[in-house]
Amino acid sequence: MCQLLAMNCNTPTDICFSFTGFQARGGRTDVHQDGWGIAFFEGRGVRVFLDAQASAHSPIAELVRQYPIKSKTVVAHIRKATQGIVALENTHPFMRELWGRYWIFAHNGNLVNFEPELDGTFLPVGDTDSEKVFCYIMQELRLRHGDQMPNNEALFATIAELTLHIGQCGEFNFLFSNDQVLMVHASTNLTYIIRKAPFATAHLKDQDMSVDFTHVTTSTDKVAVIATTPLTENESWTRLEPGTLCLFAEGDLQASVKTIAGPAEKIK
Amino acid sequence: MCQLLAMNCNTPTDICFSFTGFQARGGRTDVHQDGWGIAFFEGRGVRVFLDAQASAHSPIAELVRQYPIKSKTVVAHIRKATQGIVALENTHPFMRELWGRYWIFAHNGNLVNFEPELDGTFLPVGDTDSEKVFCYIMQELRLRHGDQMPNNEALFATIAELTLHIGQCGEFNFLFSNDQVLMVHASTNLTYIIRKAPFATAHLKDQDMSVDFTHVTTSTDKVAVIATTPLTENESWTRLEPGTLCLFAEGDLQASVKTIAGPAEKIK
Repeated sequence: MCQLLAMNCNTPTDICFSFTGFQARGGRTDVHQDGWGIAFFEGRGVRVFLDAQASAHSPIAELVRQYPIKSKTVVAHIRKATQGIVALENTHPFMRELWGRYWIFAHNGNLVNFEPELDGTFLPVGDTDSEKVFCYIMQELRLRHGDQMPNNEALFATIAELTLHIGQCGEFNFLFSNDQVLMVHASTNLTYIIRKAPFATAHLKDQDMSVDFTHVTTSTDKVAVIATTPLTENESWTRLEPGTLCLFAEGDLQASVKTIAGPAEKIK
Repeated sequence: MCQLLAMNCNTPTDICFSFTGFQARGGRTDVHQDGWGIAFFEGRGVRVFLDAQASAHSPIAELVRQYPIKSKTVVAHIRKATQGIVALENTHPFMRELWGRYWIFAHNGNLVNFEPELDGTFLPVGDTDSEKVFCYIMQELRLRHGDQMPNNEALFATIAELTLHIGQCGEFNFLFSNDQVLMVHASTNLTYIIRKAPFATAHLKDQDMSVDFTHVTTSTDKVAVIATTPLTENESWTRLEPGTLCLFAEGDLQASVKTIAGPAEKIK
């Protein structure tokens, strides 16, 4: 399996603190050592750093940990391979362009017997179930919405519908983002915290490191951090109920829907 | 304007030496300080490092200079903005996926009145002429070759035909690569060198640095380096005649065609 980390803010913020704890789980405090990657949106542009080696021992991860890149949306992943060899082309997050925007996807889980028909508009380069499902999602977005990017509400509804369908094939925790919104699906494990004023001091679980957020924020800052398991030990993280798709924007949880089908749990 | 750097080899090789000279031109020995980027193919995967600040002062460029990433094909660019603001989304090289392969493009020049009809399969995220022409090339490749990636010969013929057409709109030096081949077009300035046994010592133009290639190669290695102007001062670089499209693979110049239309200069 793998672990996921994401951040969504209302002002460009660096992720050095959270990444320090997350990085350690890639081969030091945990077993996810089959590669790692991180994507930073900056305006409409995006930077993706990838490495097929363990984040705990990667010089590129060291740079990311120390270099404060300011971003409103970040998506990161550390890999424990299930499908696909350990190789750069199988390293998350994956990126594609649609409607003149970049889209980023990272997945934790395992989809079995998931063989969608891909029409060639988006095709996987590597051989993971994760990249395949990302290509399928992108294809369906284009098919259903045509040449115009839908608004966030319509986008969210389509992703919820697709998630309901795909989730039947197995564990499907994911992070999906463009330069404006971050969608997060908890199939089994995902937690989040929204930091805002009054800010306090946080201490990492995986490294002996603290930060006093009052020194690095302004009173209007809002920062949502999402991770497979909590990254800090003295803050209150909220566990997302399995089968929940969330939309984060401007550092807030703006919408959520159930993604487990059932008589009383229709998608709203 | 901008400057280009590429490498194509028959065995994975690092670009630290060449990049050291090239990096200096982004704000120290030359004026190309409006961002830089570099793409490394590793197997079918690709890593792209981008920064909207000058390469001479970029911590990410420092990492790239010092960290020997082994690759058979590398494409790099330092930018002096002509069209499009200084921003990450306007920073070369650009990447798209087609036929389950990644494609990388970097451009030096300026295309005027180039307004191709884009059907939406590939759209620019930023606002440069360079990304627009890349999207047009990708669209035309898909339109002309359908769902199957053509062989390298057919691919080269299509790129030559497109270059002949696009080149009429202005200066169009470019680097275009997938994980197997590198295509290089000299519209005005491009030079190259192929290093192979017997190897010698080379000294950079832009930094006081030498390397004795006999210590870091084997007798069968072939390394083609392409740059806007020569990077070393004691080697013999070949200037590509303006209006030449070349195909490099396995460290060799494998094909070239004229891209200036005329009665005696038909594309072969």
